[in-house]
Amino acid sequence: MDTVELDKKYVLPTYARADVEFVSGKNARLVDSNGKKYIDFTSGIGVVSVGHANERVNSAICKQLSNITHMSNLYYTAPQALAAQKIVEASGYDMMCFFGNSGAEANEGAIKIARKFGERDGEIKRYKIITLQHSFHGRTITTVKATGQESMHNYFGPFPDGFVYADNIAQVESLLDDHTCAVMIELVQGEGGVQPQNKEEVQSLEKLLKSKNILLIVDEVQTGAYRTGEFLASNVYEITPDIVTLAKGVGGGVPIGVVMTGLKEVFTYGDHGSTFGGNFLSATAACEVIDILSEYKKSGDLEITSIFFNQALEKFYSENKNLFTSKVGIGMMCGLRVKDADTLGKIIQSAKENGVMVLKAGKNTLRFLPPLTITKEEIDEGFKSLNRAISSM
Amino acid sequence: MDTVELDKKYVLPTYARADVEFVSGKNARLVDSNGKKYIDFTSGIGVVSVGHANERVNSAICKQLSNITHMSNLYYTAPQALAAQKIVEASGYDMMCFFGNSGAEANEGAIKIARKFGERDGEIKRYKIITLQHSFHGRTITTVKATGQESMHNYFGPFPDGFVYADNIAQVESLLDDHTCAVMIELVQGEGGVQPQNKEEVQSLEKLLKSKNILLIVDEVQTGAYRTGEFLASNVYEITPDIVTLAKGVGGGVPIGVVMTGLKEVFTYGDHGSTFGGNFLSATAACEVIDILSEYKKSGDLEITSIFFNQALEKFYSENKNLFTSKVGIGMMCGLRVKDADTLGKIIQSAKENGVMVLKAGKNTLRFLPPLTITKEEIDEGFKSLNRAISSM
Ligand SMILES: Cc1ncc(COP(=O)(O)O)c(C=O)c1O
Ligand SMILES: Cc1ncc(COP(=O)(O)O)c(C=O)c1O
Repeated sequence: MDTVELDKKYVLPTYARADVEFVSGKNARLVDSNGKKYIDFTSGIGVVSVGHANERVNSAICKQLSNITHMSNLYYTAPQALAAQKIVEASGYDMMCFFGNSGAEANEGAIKIARKFGERDGEIKRYKIITLQHSFHGRTITTVKATGQESMHNYFGPFPDGFVYADNIAQVESLLDDHTCAVMIELVQGEGGVQPQNKEEVQSLEKLLKSKNILLIVDEVQTGAYRTGEFLASNVYEITPDIVTLAKGVGGGVPIGVVMTGLKEVFTYGDHGSTFGGNFLSATAACEVIDILSEYKKSGDLEITSIFFNQALEKFYSENKNLFTSKVGIGMMCGLRVKDADTLGKIIQSAKENGVMVLKAGKNTLRFLPPLTITKEEIDEGFKSLNRAISSM
Repeated sequence: MDTVELDKKYVLPTYARADVEFVSGKNARLVDSNGKKYIDFTSGIGVVSVGHANERVNSAICKQLSNITHMSNLYYTAPQALAAQKIVEASGYDMMCFFGNSGAEANEGAIKIARKFGERDGEIKRYKIITLQHSFHGRTITTVKATGQESMHNYFGPFPDGFVYADNIAQVESLLDDHTCAVMIELVQGEGGVQPQNKEEVQSLEKLLKSKNILLIVDEVQTGAYRTGEFLASNVYEITPDIVTLAKGVGGGVPIGVVMTGLKEVFTYGDHGSTFGGNFLSATAACEVIDILSEYKKSGDLEITSIFFNQALEKFYSENKNLFTSKVGIGMMCGLRVKDADTLGKIIQSAKENGVMVLKAGKNTLRFLPPLTITKEEIDEGFKSLNRAISSM
């Protein structure tokens, strides 16, 4: 049986997979099972931050595996302690980390921290967490409920109570009450449509919450690891959240989730845990990815790449205003709003046929999450293919 | 800063870590940062099923990484489809798989399947899931609530409603009502104290639930991947569950979680998802681990090792009846009940000092989860150290 047949026979049908099977990659280049070549403007939905088959990451991993892959959080794990240090130092915040294995797990950790903070605080039990409409926070039962998408709140209930949805940042204040322990936001909504928040609004939200002793949780699962130009989008927005979550780009492809917080004493032994979280493999990958990206940032090359990518995208946009209504996003987390949702599907399909992989976000956004290490040649080639894709539609 | 200092500075204190930092391993042998050597009777709490630094797994992983580590579940991933096939075939059940990244995520998937099954079924919304006292199902908010340990149901609420705890299998029947959609059990409770269920009781539970169209979920996160002698403990118990979850030993150290079910049509596109789940890395590791272990099983060597380990453990037990009251467990998931809980901590500490790593389970069980590939020499050496540990207490 070929892969498609095997997949249909043995894998539960939760994904509407596009009809393509990749077999290898190198930085922003991909090859499928038919030998067809692609430029990757998706990086596995923001995961392969340092490019496919990154040699530094792979050799760090393989060296680590030759020693030890996994032991247990009952004992110290040097790469985990190091990864925590690198993450905290890159963020610039005075925080500590907990390691899980996905964005959803990172957000579960964040919600647990906020709830425990709320319970300990005086007499009133504060447990409500305000999230935003069109947000996406994960696929566990609790993070599904935290996700501000009504259509996702089916089938899997009873969901945990205590999630309240604000239409936007401005509306948050009116929803705060004595039971609110936290507000959780993405600074650039990813799945919701590459929608950046307004910086001033976020900064006043930060002030408001601090004045009320309510926590600000920033879900940086998609925006983190230099995706928006700084290590965290929170750095770009010049705020200091109480809790930050990371996953995707931080491991370069190895499953990892991180929740970090300045509330260093909120958890005590036994409050949280993970069998695999922060093991030798995933922590070693994270250390190397952060080293690569922080060097890349310091050298100025990340910014050069981001400018070059955005210029190419801007040019593509301005040449195709019949299809697109605006260019959105920050850094290398970009999108083009498509005039109608129908066309969006056609563009993605035609792009694939023409050798460039792009993503959908929300209802009408063409999303670009290239590897941060994408080269000028790869960018040029990708947009050439995208132009071909559009003209052949 | 050394690892311990870094860890205390940058990692949230959720684990009461023992004061040891491993740096390398080979099969059931470990070396710590001081060059001290150990025999590993823990395998990272049942994870390193094929031993530390397994060369077949490592070379499969490194070969895969040189091609591609991660793309996305939006596209087909050959190793994922293959891993699903291998898992399903090894189980002997007619099922399909979904891939996440941990035991907790696997159980979230199981609960989602059960709840969706319950909602679709006729008029009454069935959502209640019965779990057992002393169970352990994970650290997400929902799996914490599914865990039958009252002391864990603090701080992080509101928890989702709908979990009901039975004292034991026999009590389950009396707790079933029109809202029950599933019963979730470990066949050998791991964290709860290496407590195997009675086979006849489990088989009558299976019949009872089938007759009432209530699902049986078996959490095989700790028992799965040949830990109890067959691929699944469900095979040992000769039952056919509706849903099975796996994690730990299936990836040999790479983060992975699997939920498998015969309810092939319960999920539709968009009902569930994971960014990393079943990516090239984790699925490749799982394929190789399952190949290694199924060959090991077929050759008869798994059984030989298991018998040898259990004989050595039996001998150790019979020579130390002043400390232990019984030997428990199935296959290579074993324990010794310790007369008093205080002594248990001392044994584990002394064992570590004497060069053998063992685990605690429940309040008073000394737990053994050696790599399934442990050699006779390693077993002998481990028990020699354990004897030394006891006499030096
Ligand atoms: C902002 C955000 N949070 C959380 C998640 C969930 O991450 P994961 O799929 O790793 O659980 C995602 C995934 O797309 C995300 O974009
Ligand atoms: C039976 C069982 N289920 C679930 C889990 C949770 O697995 P994880 O720590 O990978 O989330 C464990 C972990 O010990 C377990 O033993």
